[in-house]
Amino acid sequence: MQAEALKGIIAYPVTPFLPDGSDLDEAAFRAVIAALLASEPAAIAILGSAGESAYLRDEEWQRGVEIGVEAVAGAVPLIVGIGELTTAAAVAKARFAEVAGADMLMVIPVSYWKLTDAEIVEHFAAIASATALPIMVYNNPATSGVDMNPALLVRLVREFATVRLVKESSGDINRMHAIRELSEGTIPFYNGANHLALEALAAGASGWCTAAPNLLGGEPGRLVDLMAAGDLEEARTLFYAMLPLLRFIVQGGLPTTVKAGLRLKGLEAGDPRKPLLPLSGEPLEQLRRLIG
Amino acid sequence: MQAEALKGIIAYPVTPFLPDGSDLDEAAFRAVIAALLASEPAAIAILGSAGESAYLRDEEWQRGVEIGVEAVAGAVPLIVGIGELTTAAAVAKARFAEVAGADMLMVIPVSYWKLTDAEIVEHFAAIASATALPIMVYNNPATSGVDMNPALLVRLVREFATVRLVKESSGDINRMHAIRELSEGTIPFYNGANHLALEALAAGASGWCTAAPNLLGGEPGRLVDLMAAGDLEEARTLFYAMLPLLRFIVQGGLPTTVKAGLRLKGLEAGDPRKPLLPLSGEPLEQLRRLIG
Amino acid sequence: MQAEALKGIIAYPVTPFLPDGSDLDEAAFRAVIAALLASEPAAIAILGSAGESAYLRDEEWQRGVEIGVEAVAGAVPLIVGIGELTTAAAVAKARFAEVAGADMLMVIPVSYWKLTDAEIVEHFAAIASATALPIMVYNNPATSGVDMNPALLVRLVREFATVRLVKESSGDINRMHAIRELSEGTIPFYNGANHLALEALAAGASGWCTAAPNLLGGEPGRLVDLMAAGDLEEARTLFYAMLPLLRFIVQGGLPTTVKAGLRLKGLEAGDPRKPLLPLSGEPLEQLRRLIG
Amino acid sequence: MQAEALKGIIAYPVTPFLPDGSDLDEAAFRAVIAALLASEPAAIAILGSAGESAYLRDEEWQRGVEIGVEAVAGAVPLIVGIGELTTAAAVAKARFAEVAGADMLMVIPVSYWKLTDAEIVEHFAAIASATALPIMVYNNPATSGVDMNPALLVRLVREFATVRLVKESSGDINRMHAIRELSEGTIPFYNGANHLALEALAAGASGWCTAAPNLLGGEPGRLVDLMAAGDLEEARTLFYAMLPLLRFIVQGGLPTTVKAGLRLKGLEAGDPRKPLLPLSGEPLEQLRRLIG
Repeated sequence: MQAEALKGIIAYPVTPFLPDGSDLDEAAFRAVIAALLASEPAAIAILGSAGESAYLRDEEWQRGVEIGVEAVAGAVPLIVGIGELTTAAAVAKARFAEVAGADMLMVIPVSYWKLTDAEIVEHFAAIASATALPIMVYNNPATSGVDMNPALLVRLVREFATVRLVKESSGDINRMHAIRELSEGTIPFYNGANHLALEALAAGASGWCTAAPNLLGGEPGRLVDLMAAGDLEEARTLFYAMLPLLRFIVQGGLPTTVKAGLRLKGLEAGDPRKPLLPLSGEPLEQLRRLIG
Repeated sequence: MQAEALKGIIAYPVTPFLPDGSDLDEAAFRAVIAALLASEPAAIAILGSAGESAYLRDEEWQRGVEIGVEAVAGAVPLIVGIGELTTAAAVAKARFAEVAGADMLMVIPVSYWKLTDAEIVEHFAAIASATALPIMVYNNPATSGVDMNPALLVRLVREFATVRLVKESSGDINRMHAIRELSEGTIPFYNGANHLALEALAAGASGWCTAAPNLLGGEPGRLVDLMAAGDLEEARTLFYAMLPLLRFIVQGGLPTTVKAGLRLKGLEAGDPRKPLLPLSGEPLEQLRRLIG
Repeated sequence: MQAEALKGIIAYPVTPFLPDGSDLDEAAFRAVIAALLASEPAAIAILGSAGESAYLRDEEWQRGVEIGVEAVAGAVPLIVGIGELTTAAAVAKARFAEVAGADMLMVIPVSYWKLTDAEIVEHFAAIASATALPIMVYNNPATSGVDMNPALLVRLVREFATVRLVKESSGDINRMHAIRELSEGTIPFYNGANHLALEALAAGASGWCTAAPNLLGGEPGRLVDLMAAGDLEEARTLFYAMLPLLRFIVQGGLPTTVKAGLRLKGLEAGDPRKPLLPLSGEPLEQLRRLIG
Repeated sequence: MQAEALKGIIAYPVTPFLPDGSDLDEAAFRAVIAALLASEPAAIAILGSAGESAYLRDEEWQRGVEIGVEAVAGAVPLIVGIGELTTAAAVAKARFAEVAGADMLMVIPVSYWKLTDAEIVEHFAAIASATALPIMVYNNPATSGVDMNPALLVRLVREFATVRLVKESSGDINRMHAIRELSEGTIPFYNGANHLALEALAAGASGWCTAAPNLLGGEPGRLVDLMAAGDLEEARTLFYAMLPLLRFIVQGGLPTTVKAGLRLKGLEAGDPRKPLLPLSGEPLEQLRRLIG
């Protein structure tokens, strides 16, 4: 695929578990993906942060990839998230995803001990040389513990032919400015911070990586379209209308809040995996009001 | 004046000193203001952060107000900055500015010891009851040591009839979101963070408070116009063209960098007051390249 | 064992891998533990942060526990680290450690998505009800992404009979003050921040959890003894003599720096697991000078 | 005086105002100083952070110096605080203090615009060349907005013959480690963070700069003595007994809380200057309980 040509919404399904939490709920996963496809995203990205990939056993992760490939069925590009502590595990998963039929990888390094730039570069080198799939490098320090600054992100794209896109979720709009400036506008960047959706598009983001379509359907996509059309007034109105929900789902943790929201909307996607607990009490009522 | 109707660029002159640093350079101050007026701002705000008001003796400050009133001469509204550690000094300056002919006050509380919300509210109460001038409440924690969160800013506007506008310079776009949400869009807010000019306008800012017109003339105003017209593509191009200079003048301190830039452009506005030192060496060369 | 009676040094071995990185180097692991025992610690804690437990496959982790039990052989209490993203995995490892013969568990919650206090409490509840072993609750936000404040740490000790000790590695001495105050001096706390060793002992820490004995032998223990004896002058001299090395091994990441240091001292413990890279270049020379 | 020989408590009086806030309360100021002298400090430092020097008019400040000289009357060394935004004002005050009979200056640079190292060095150069008094360089970023790192503090002592001591109030114990290491133990440093008093003495501080003797009399001095005698157990007990009050007076702002405490103890020292408000309500009750 032409990774750089991707524009618009990249939608992130949650990963449903069976009621006892013991395994994936395959039927529910297919249903979640089908609902996302109905929102007409530019691509679907499975097993990312919202997809609780960090909490899956290896065999569950693999089964998740297979279901994703079947459920998306070529309707849009399928991106698979790779977030592993060890390089060996990341390489193994990247290879599995390629063989299973993924179209692209979204790779986020994860730390226990802080990584140097050299360590991050070698991590990407190992993955890039193990598969031919295009790679989106994903920065999300709040979840992964690794903060790749714009210079490093640009370096990764320049150094590895298959690393083509950046997803920036630090929530700092200056990072997007820097990526654009350092790459002289040549490297496409996606925004992964829901509460900055409006501003990131103003700043030139190619699109928005988000789990919001699980709850908001095609509205996030409409924001992208309005901004592309220069209808700033209408875009701003739509953004502020969505903002309380966007902020809520991020602050409460995407798996927790999106699964709760799907249940409220009648699509049973189960609970997050422990220690994550299902939303309850006042926050659940708040979400009910936000979803309306 | 109708404070809420103000839109667009509020331009900030630097305050020139004589070569020996002993006093204001009145002629240079008039020249700086005249040059700013030529950039066609919506208003001129003297004796703000860029205007080194914190470094002036009382009599210099008063003379500065008088010169400002004469030099602006009603061409656009004249705003006077009030940033004092004690409430008594702030009240005295507010009264002086009103008598001297200012159209509006921009008030920033300044701390040595951190202020509670109650202390900040009483500070504004004292100023608001001492003059009839409309007030713009100004938040700039990096310089003043006081961080007023959006709830407090909104409270100040609601509580005091003459507090009408907010200037937000924290550099956190979420603050602007919150002001709009908490006030249901009724409180006009201005952006004071140069490097966020594009995004703040996208987020609904009424305008941009900036010293950049000292060096960039009417270009900042053109950004506002392009955004108002929905020409996002052109606005973005203009913003990124200005961004290296905008970032430079903030990071190096506005009095230091803007005075150096004015000298490079042929308008001698002197040096900042000690301990601030004039720009020199490599940073000066960098500025020369940025100004082109 | 009487967990609360524990005082002094809890020593942390690194976990050696074979030269090709594919598996544990069991002989080297035994040698590392034997060397630590020679430094006469109060206890040995295997598979902690320094022990790269986050980077081990399940079967490696289990084998590590078995080797630890054999190698320590009752000479001192054996503590096993449990740091898992899912509660299910933490419970399974806790049970394994108990059956294998561990004397105590050191439990650190690890996050991808931030955990609420309720989620952390349930995580400990599940572990505490799955084993009879005493538990040391371990706070290390920089590595785990979870920051448990003193009130929560004290709550965990009060709420679960087998949670007996706190290890505080945030590096904020105020946390230790708060634990002592909130528990009225009844909850023993250990310091896990090497660069605060002197001050933590002054503040009343029961001891020091550290990988430093791998490189410094009995010197860390001597610091504890000097402070217990009130020989503050000598303790301070010793602390400042060790400080450059203590700071170095933390800043460079304990597995990376301690393994490099062991090699310099002639005990081959291999390299850390990728993406962690072995120390090289100038940092390695710096370590060589520090070890002298 | 032999500045380096100073050891123990440097006590900070508050600066009382008349009931209407219009001017200094000279009699109360003398009473506050007399009470401090009764606590037997090593030195008295007037017009520091606790002394609200930032809120004084110039003539009040000068009168404050004169009263201090008279009231201390050579009983112990008298230190005068200099914290000014402009170098010219700092120099003028330094000269005034010398002529008036001060024994030492405590100099803190204050910022509106951030200062570069070069600007800070020139600021000290101007002051050091304007008076012969020994100088204590004072770092307190939370109040002054200027953060001088240990390397800069050490540089100032090395570069200017009369800059002899460091007062470190950042609250980061690592800064004290670094000062000791960078100066190879040759530069005496004082701790200015009340809540770190125990640990700073452990780390080798020459003493403790504090307003606490206003409320605690000789107890802070006893902590210093116990640590000097190596009675760590008793020192720790005393420190934890004082800690709730120490933390309270810092968190609520020293002028506000110490003045309230003096009133509770029967020494009327008035209220802080607006916008600072007198302590009231629940915080005042809390202080009453802490003072007992």
